[in-house]
Amino acid sequence: MEQSRLFDMIVLFTDFGWRGPYVGQMKAVLAQQAPDQLVIDLMHDVPVFNFRAAAYLLASLVEPFPNGTVFLAIVDPGVGSRERRPCVLKADGRWYVGPDNGLFNVIARHSAEYSAWVIDWQPASLSDSFHGRDLFAPVSAQLACGQLPAMTETRLAQNPEEWPIDLAEIIYLDAFGNAMTGLHGARISKHAALVLNGTRINYARVFAEAEKGVPFWYVNSNGLVEIAMNQADAAQTLGLEIGMQLQII
Amino acid sequence: MEQSRLFDMIVLFTDFGWRGPYVGQMKAVLAQQAPDQLVIDLMHDVPVFNFRAAAYLLASLVEPFPNGTVFLAIVDPGVGSRERRPCVLKADGRWYVGPDNGLFNVIARHSAEYSAWVIDWQPASLSDSFHGRDLFAPVSAQLACGQLPAMTETRLAQNPEEWPIDLAEIIYLDAFGNAMTGLHGARISKHAALVLNGTRINYARVFAEAEKGVPFWYVNSNGLVEIAMNQADAAQTLGLEIGMQLQII
Amino acid sequence: MEQSRLFDMIVLFTDFGWRGPYVGQMKAVLAQQAPDQLVIDLMHDVPVFNFRAAAYLLASLVEPFPNGTVFLAIVDPGVGSRERRPCVLKADGRWYVGPDNGLFNVIARHSAEYSAWVIDWQPASLSDSFHGRDLFAPVSAQLACGQLPAMTETRLAQNPEEWPIDLAEIIYLDAFGNAMTGLHGARISKHAALVLNGTRINYARVFAEAEKGVPFWYVNSNGLVEIAMNQADAAQTLGLEIGMQLQII
Repeated sequence: MEQSRLFDMIVLFTDFGWRGPYVGQMKAVLAQQAPDQLVIDLMHDVPVFNFRAAAYLLASLVEPFPNGTVFLAIVDPGVGSRERRPCVLKADGRWYVGPDNGLFNVIARHSAEYSAWVIDWQPASLSDSFHGRDLFAPVSAQLACGQLPAMTETRLAQNPEEWPIDLAEIIYLDAFGNAMTGLHGARISKHAALVLNGTRINYARVFAEAEKGVPFWYVNSNGLVEIAMNQADAAQTLGLEIGMQLQII
Repeated sequence: MEQSRLFDMIVLFTDFGWRGPYVGQMKAVLAQQAPDQLVIDLMHDVPVFNFRAAAYLLASLVEPFPNGTVFLAIVDPGVGSRERRPCVLKADGRWYVGPDNGLFNVIARHSAEYSAWVIDWQPASLSDSFHGRDLFAPVSAQLACGQLPAMTETRLAQNPEEWPIDLAEIIYLDAFGNAMTGLHGARISKHAALVLNGTRINYARVFAEAEKGVPFWYVNSNGLVEIAMNQADAAQTLGLEIGMQLQII
Repeated sequence: MEQSRLFDMIVLFTDFGWRGPYVGQMKAVLAQQAPDQLVIDLMHDVPVFNFRAAAYLLASLVEPFPNGTVFLAIVDPGVGSRERRPCVLKADGRWYVGPDNGLFNVIARHSAEYSAWVIDWQPASLSDSFHGRDLFAPVSAQLACGQLPAMTETRLAQNPEEWPIDLAEIIYLDAFGNAMTGLHGARISKHAALVLNGTRINYARVFAEAEKGVPFWYVNSNGLVEIAMNQADAAQTLGLEIGMQLQII
């Protein structure tokens, strides 16, 4: 019983924030259509409408989740438009449900194998503006319950092979002012420095080993290169913003 | 088993915000007194102390929830005063637990039939300032478990028939700067314009069809008229505030 | 079955905020390692890095929780340093898991009896910066499932007897601008006044009985002395900050 539960987790990853009824309404759908599955709020403050940063962020977070986990991931500037299709990706045993706008490209890029489908299944009632609740949540519930919704195999709208594995950009600023990048710590020398907004930034293993008032980079708990300051707000001090590019020297 | 769970959902709708221990303390009570019921955080950023806006907002959100759902709803400027009574409403098969201050009036106004009760049940220990945890949560747990607390049938303190079905006011601003109104989209012509703070606002079906930089109104995913801008913050651009009135022309 | 669930609750108390993946990642660990236990978010906006204020806050919140509850509590400026040890406290039948930096001192001070252990158990993979996910969450899951991780009885790094029972300081500012103190309402006369930042503050039983525009103190729902204003923001009006000291006259 515990085992079956593990393989059914539904993980939410959105740019909805914690304000408004949006997250709650999706969870109400999941509660009704997949009542025995655990739902985890992974994050709801993904950079708004920024599916490129979100794609790198999501890819850094999925590894600890077991096979069969369903990620309901929504960062979607084009909701209601006819251009972007609703899709399902299966990669390395995990499911991803959301818009086919690039959000799953880094997952696909990293995976040993993946398949993608466009969702054909339609709810009885589909609002123009809230596909998360009306379409993606029911499809996620079906997958978590071991059912396949009507869907057709396809290619992702954007070719994952054209996306770099390492992205030398800031992809997320956390509440403490730390700046995550799309660079993998395992692929960069500890002797390398980063240059960001004119500032040279050296490596430190942990906050406690960094000099106060001096920015440093370290490998964060998800394996990404992150820029921080010991007991200070690096983002504010250095004027960092999501999308800002950095050099490795 | 799945069925029984569906009929027992407890839905939280408050102005407590996500800061502080308040939501967590209510959920700890529910976890102990109704451990098998699912608890959904519908929203915790209802306009603070504004039970009138909250009443219209709540009424727009309840329809997807099944019979037997218990809404624990608290927007309560008068907590600790002796004037407002604690009440239970049953309307169209759903339960509502909270203060009798108008919060449930729009639900009652819209329902085919409803009954209201004043809560006589008292906890062993009742704080002066946190009836949500001490009184409303235990009563919600009892109802969700199929037990009736001691209560006496009554009339709501305010007569629902005196509240308009459509409220031509802003009742909520979301994190993206979209402004919900108390107007029902199904009851207004798509050719109508809204006038708000001196600005004339026309209809668009979805964000993607609206011109950038020009505010529009559309019918949101809960059926309410909502004012928005494509990839911009309508509330900030137009100086919108909760309670602001609008004209339909 | 309901009983067994009660004794297994895991309660989160952190300074992580609701932004970022941190809370979600801890809950994903708990979901996998303690899938039948209820997890309660008690609060995630504990004053950042302020384990002293946090210790008084936590102690005011635990009483309603049953024996066997596991508190996963993290306020940890020294994560990654070798100075502070990971610890487990058992006090009055409840478990506490977190850093041995003073966070559990007020709990220990108040308890009839307590024991403390340093955690010897090590995860297969331990990041430098996120012990909450890698170490404290698995240990909490083990305790909630009735297993004891490898650990050695010890003394707390700071002696609880040296911490005062009442702390005449502001320990928390809530979203409404109310200021909690570390003073116990039951140990102070209702005729006493507080002096804070040059302002004299008298007692009122509830908000509704306080004069508008005049700050008052009352005993909050957790038994602590709290400073507030009726329908106004006391923190902003009086310029209050966490750590500010007050006098009782």
